[in-house]
Amino acid sequence: MKKLLLAITFTISLLFGSCQNQATPPGTITHTVFFKLKHPKGSEAEKLFIEKAVALKSISTVMNMTSVKEIGQKNDFEWGLTMQFKNQEDYDTYSNHPDHVAFVENVWKKEVVDFMEIDYVDNN
Amino acid sequence: MKKLLLAITFTISLLFGSCQNQATPPGTITHTVFFKLKHPKGSEAEKLFIEKAVALKSISTVMNMTSVKEIGQKNDFEWGLTMQFKNQEDYDTYSNHPDHVAFVENVWKKEVVDFMEIDYVDNN
Repeated sequence: MKKLLLAITFTISLLFGSCQNQATPPGTITHTVFFKLKHPKGSEAEKLFIEKAVALKSISTVMNMTSVKEIGQKNDFEWGLTMQFKNQEDYDTYSNHPDHVAFVENVWKKEVVDFMEIDYVDNN
Repeated sequence: MKKLLLAITFTISLLFGSCQNQATPPGTITHTVFFKLKHPKGSEAEKLFIEKAVALKSISTVMNMTSVKEIGQKNDFEWGLTMQFKNQEDYDTYSNHPDHVAFVENVWKKEVVDFMEIDYVDNN
């Protein structure tokens, strides 16, 4: 009986722990970039670009990398990437990582026609 | 014993349920607006503006209303609001709500000097 209760308590803690991880801890930086590609909408080239961008989540400090579609009529951007970093150091690790640098030079600069970066932290 | 197990199962379900709610269901619209106020940084007027903006979370269709500080150097915006809507209908309910309309007319138009709205959905 005691073992069962212990096992149950352990399970609840695990579940609750993984749940808490989804909240945004103070100081977390959300890095977003919205952009327009030179590729036609729905093209294979567009799909490939997004795949290469999202693949940067393999850099260990990147959290919650998500590709998004801009749906508002109030700007010209069509795509976005959102990701989070625990702190500025983790952000810098991403910015300076060879995979990121290579992506910017070989893919981003050649295929993006317009973009805007917005970075923010919760106002607590 | 059976009652205890039932109670524990119920608790786990509740915890897990509230946890799942934090994920973004498909089709969820994230509405973001970044802006610059005419008020000096750190002023009471600035604080009041943010309070009035965040108070719009009382409109029933608004989810996860958050005020954020823009920290990047690549644009001139200083503040942001992020919120989510289950679908376009919920978004329209917010846009057309008398509290939102009054806020735009009486507060936003008088105190915001520049802004950009970006709305997006997950690319799934």
